[in-house]
Amino acid sequence: RVKKGLWVKNFTFCHKEHLSVQLLPDDLPLDFVSAVTCQVCGHLLANPVQAPCGHLFCRSCILKYGRAVGGHCPACSLPCAPADLTSPAKAFLGVLHSLQLLCPKDGCGERVRLDSFRPHCLGHHLEKRQEDEQRSTATEPSLDSYLPVNKGG
Amino acid sequence: RVKKGLWVKNFTFCHKEHLSVQLLPDDLPLDFVSAVTCQVCGHLLANPVQAPCGHLFCRSCILKYGRAVGGHCPACSLPCAPADLTSPAKAFLGVLHSLQLLCPKDGCGERVRLDSFRPHCLGHHLEKRQEDEQRSTATEPSLDSYLPVNKGG
Ligand SMILES: [Zn+2]
Ligand SMILES: [Zn+2]
Ligand SMILES: [Zn+2]
Ligand SMILES: [Zn+2]
Ligand SMILES: [Zn+2]
Ligand SMILES: [Zn+2]
Ligand SMILES: [Zn+2]
Ligand SMILES: [Zn+2]
Repeated sequence: RVKKGLWVKNFTFCHKEHLSVQLLPDDLPLDFVSAVTCQVCGHLLANPVQAPCGHLFCRSCILKYGRAVGGHCPACSLPCAPADLTSPAKAFLGVLHSLQLLCPKDGCGERVRLDSFRPHCLGHHLEKRQEDEQRSTATEPSLDSYLPVNKGG
Repeated sequence: RVKKGLWVKNFTFCHKEHLSVQLLPDDLPLDFVSAVTCQVCGHLLANPVQAPCGHLFCRSCILKYGRAVGGHCPACSLPCAPADLTSPAKAFLGVLHSLQLLCPKDGCGERVRLDSFRPHCLGHHLEKRQEDEQRSTATEPSLDSYLPVNKGG
């Protein structure tokens, strides 16, 4: 593989949008991990497209790369213009979307399919917000005891 | 990848036992195909084992390779003794076994999971044998007409 400088990994600014390969079980064969990794940003492929050479990238990554560096494949340097990009085979997308990721949230540790990972994490986010709200509600009575209480009627 | 001479592909004598990567849909990304290919024989991985370097082989292939060539990985030359071989991650085996292969039989063209491919092909084999038997049964009356027939009783 072509060694990429940090500048390539950084100019796509996708670390908040894309998923890290570290979410995969850590015992997966390297060649397999590499086959589901964007050759530009190093994250798990997001909306992947395939170059004529067969290499895969996130659509947004290869377009940014093309504008910044030129119309060649970052992995093998063969020509790769935006018009040459195609959708990967359905059989491959099926494998990609059904990859099992390890939820990194403390106390969860569930294996979650890649295509359900965002909703799963949103679930944790909503749980946390709800807990925070309940916590603030739970502390209200003790606060209230310092305040005049309207007993109603 | 290390370029392997034909002698490596041939000394394993596995072409009748293992499945060709050409049974895969031909639009799959090359890196993905490579990740499910034995690094010794070039077939789809059969009973795969993983070397410490992370490369994968059919168990029988890497054992034959080790006896013939020595205890190193044929893909990256790192040390690889039989005792170092481990089973690949379950998540990977799940992907491998659920690969969809195209049945090459004339008039079939079904997509069949790798782990059902042998029974599927056995089905074709039995169909064919049955057809052959029916055909020979169908021709029997005309043969019989030249032979004395035991009318029973
Ligand atoms: Zn990315
Ligand atoms: Zn990317
Ligand atoms: Zn390429
Ligand atoms: Zn979780
Ligand atoms: Zn083989
Ligand atoms: Zn093999
Ligand atoms: Zn190796
Ligand atoms: Zn068939």
